[in-house]
Amino acid sequence: MTQKNDFSKNRLTKKSDNLSKWYHEVVNLADLATTSEVKGSMIIKANGYALWEKVQQILDVKFKEDGVKNYYFPLLIPYHLLKKEKEHLEGFSPELAVVTYAGGEKLKEPYVLRPTSETIMYRTFSDWIQSYRDLPLKINQWCNVIRWEKRTYPFLRTTEFLWQEGHTVHQTEKEAVDMALKALKWYQWFYEEYFALSPYLGLKSEQEKFAGAKTTYGIELVIPNGKSLQAATTHNLGDNFSKVFEITFLNNQRKKCYPFQTSWGLSTRSIGGLILIHGDDAGLILPPQVADPQVVILTVKGKNKSQNNKIQAQAEKIYSSLKENQFRVILDDDSKLSLGYRINEWEIKGVPLRIEIGEKEVQENKVKFARRDNFEKSFIPEHKIIETTRETLAAIQKNLLSQSKKIKKDLTVNVDNYEDFKKQAQAKKFIRAFWCGNKNCEEKIKEETKLTTRVLEMDRLNKKESGPCVYCGKKAQQKWLFAQSY
Amino acid sequence: MTQKNDFSKNRLTKKSDNLSKWYHEVVNLADLATTSEVKGSMIIKANGYALWEKVQQILDVKFKEDGVKNYYFPLLIPYHLLKKEKEHLEGFSPELAVVTYAGGEKLKEPYVLRPTSETIMYRTFSDWIQSYRDLPLKINQWCNVIRWEKRTYPFLRTTEFLWQEGHTVHQTEKEAVDMALKALKWYQWFYEEYFALSPYLGLKSEQEKFAGAKTTYGIELVIPNGKSLQAATTHNLGDNFSKVFEITFLNNQRKKCYPFQTSWGLSTRSIGGLILIHGDDAGLILPPQVADPQVVILTVKGKNKSQNNKIQAQAEKIYSSLKENQFRVILDDDSKLSLGYRINEWEIKGVPLRIEIGEKEVQENKVKFARRDNFEKSFIPEHKIIETTRETLAAIQKNLLSQSKKIKKDLTVNVDNYEDFKKQAQAKKFIRAFWCGNKNCEEKIKEETKLTTRVLEMDRLNKKESGPCVYCGKKAQQKWLFAQSY
Repeated sequence: MTQKNDFSKNRLTKKSDNLSKWYHEVVNLADLATTSEVKGSMIIKANGYALWEKVQQILDVKFKEDGVKNYYFPLLIPYHLLKKEKEHLEGFSPELAVVTYAGGEKLKEPYVLRPTSETIMYRTFSDWIQSYRDLPLKINQWCNVIRWEKRTYPFLRTTEFLWQEGHTVHQTEKEAVDMALKALKWYQWFYEEYFALSPYLGLKSEQEKFAGAKTTYGIELVIPNGKSLQAATTHNLGDNFSKVFEITFLNNQRKKCYPFQTSWGLSTRSIGGLILIHGDDAGLILPPQVADPQVVILTVKGKNKSQNNKIQAQAEKIYSSLKENQFRVILDDDSKLSLGYRINEWEIKGVPLRIEIGEKEVQENKVKFARRDNFEKSFIPEHKIIETTRETLAAIQKNLLSQSKKIKKDLTVNVDNYEDFKKQAQAKKFIRAFWCGNKNCEEKIKEETKLTTRVLEMDRLNKKESGPCVYCGKKAQQKWLFAQSY
Repeated sequence: MTQKNDFSKNRLTKKSDNLSKWYHEVVNLADLATTSEVKGSMIIKANGYALWEKVQQILDVKFKEDGVKNYYFPLLIPYHLLKKEKEHLEGFSPELAVVTYAGGEKLKEPYVLRPTSETIMYRTFSDWIQSYRDLPLKINQWCNVIRWEKRTYPFLRTTEFLWQEGHTVHQTEKEAVDMALKALKWYQWFYEEYFALSPYLGLKSEQEKFAGAKTTYGIELVIPNGKSLQAATTHNLGDNFSKVFEITFLNNQRKKCYPFQTSWGLSTRSIGGLILIHGDDAGLILPPQVADPQVVILTVKGKNKSQNNKIQAQAEKIYSSLKENQFRVILDDDSKLSLGYRINEWEIKGVPLRIEIGEKEVQENKVKFARRDNFEKSFIPEHKIIETTRETLAAIQKNLLSQSKKIKKDLTVNVDNYEDFKKQAQAKKFIRAFWCGNKNCEEKIKEETKLTTRVLEMDRLNKKESGPCVYCGKKAQQKWLFAQSY
């Protein structure tokens, strides 16, 4: 919609020169989002929202297959409810937005805009749950949440963001842990299969866990600048909240018990990770599984009218045939803008596959394929277009995931002494090192290197290891992953 | 989830005895929604939210086919933006909820929770629109909105509700009017084809139009108690907002012009209309097009184990075959609850078609069909189940729409003098009568009868009629539809 006639490739900062500047430019030029007059809130534009719709469609099916049902709870939380769980309140207090006037009157009790919905939901769960037959209760909600952030960044950290929050209630803590791990697997599956991103996943430290949780599991994305982006979390809440909100059930021996709970969420932040990891100097790169369109057909016309008609007819024919075969495709048959400009536009928007059709292609009964991920070009005979489109999109999806895995591998180092730790921290690496679990070591490391524990990786959770804590030298039993967090 | 072991048909108030009481009970017992601790905000439960998801899926496709794109704008509106359009501000002022504290500080300028998004959107449109090539701009957003209501009612009037709001910008007013009328047709199509509801649609009076609009068109549902439920509106905003927000474009003669705008919305209120019109003394009745499930298969078991196994096997077979044929179906093979209880449950939840399978049915290779809309029962041979299910669901959908048409017809009267008007108003009718267009007559009628103009029906908009105003007797040119509004 914006005027881009002065656009050229040179307008985009090189990704490796200044990731932050590049990111803002891509978000803007690819029509993903834009800033608003509301402090720290972005406007999600069509291309950004289309990605969020894909996230919703994919995860929603997954949740429902598991028996999770969608509900909708109020945005406004009475302050006395939020206060009930002490850690939860402390964790969220600095970020709250508060409604004090409504309907022309000062409110007797202020309402808080939900930063997350545990308290408003669990107040009601106590009415809904009486017997073990009411369990498990599995609820999800797609909604907006508000957390007043000091420094904001489109998608990555905004005052208002969109997310889903799953909330479940179980008879036993084991069931709750299993549920938190299952949700973690869903998120991993989503990131790997759809966003083509290879995350770290594992347990959070006491310091980094969710306010009010017993344990938190996290999905961490490795950003090319060496920072870690927390891209989803799942929580075993234990019976913390059920005790506070007096949620009880009669078990099958008719004994009154407190149930065990989980919550888990993934937000529009995921889109920030996608942009940061897959983008390149030409702009956004979308994985075919979530790209819409997946394919853009470009007509390359000349001055010969009858040739141009043939090109147009051929392009329309291929467009229809791709559409019939369920590909998300659009036809760009613009004849006013230059070819270079048009190519730049589709590149910056990250469309995975571009098909060009000009005079030569029509004459020789073929088309030109151009991959967005590696700029590879090839000529495909007409009868092979469908098959090759399918193969190429699959290859792009696979290649993007491989690249993400490579970034992760290249940026992660094992370290066994603090000198090395500091060196690698300066080199912006993800560091795997023994840590004794002591909060003081964790805090000192953060102060001195800016690095925090990201996760204890899942495949190390039950591993028997032993070595000196990288900070204090005392005996440690697990290697944690450290990185600078977004 | 709630304990309903004490449930019996007797628990439900008769619809004709006390519509309001019946409504609250159905909303509760059919697990559509429940009240919350937040004044006037409801919790939408799984069955209610599933209906909203259907609304979203159906309308979203329609909007996108027309080139409307989904965006997401901030919930919070800086107060100075809301103030810009005077009528708009006046209209919404009494209903605003205001954030005055955030991030631990008193805000310099308060934020208002969006009651609707014209002001926050149009502030940005002025950045996005420069040339006629940027038009039309067609945007939609699915979101929550807040309007502080004094008296609330689940779905029908809640402090927070969910809706979609479409916003478009056009070069000419004619285009804007066409768009407002097109959106009105979409809503009509949605109500008739999916919710099986036959609405009135037409132009709103000056008094009843949207705050800031030039003209408003409305969809009005005829509720069996004779009240009218405004169930969607579309607005031609003229250039009111574009002037206030300085949205301009250069036309193809490079002349600076103000564009013309529309907005249009449909909310969770629609579900309230559905419940009120289609429900009966046994509970909710869902139109097959939006029901999930559409079919419930009930096993009716006895004491003979081998017979029970056969019943179970047959039920599972039919379940699979219906599922394969794309019906939304569930199998209720509960063996603890009584048959009567189970039937009541499915009836109260409004599942359109119930299929029962017992010993006799298995022996005779048939099943029992029970329609929810008219309680008709019939026995269907096994090989005809798919075909008959399709026919029966179509018949139910059709019948529900016919019933809605009948209610509309039965409750509408033509009146040509004020004595009659008052009598019919007392009889809770929709009244079609000449009105001169004078605001005073409209207000007096409201004072004396509680009836307000609902719409000037679309098919009367360009009709040449003439008669004395039902209130003042002066010459009137159009018959308006009056009713008591929800």
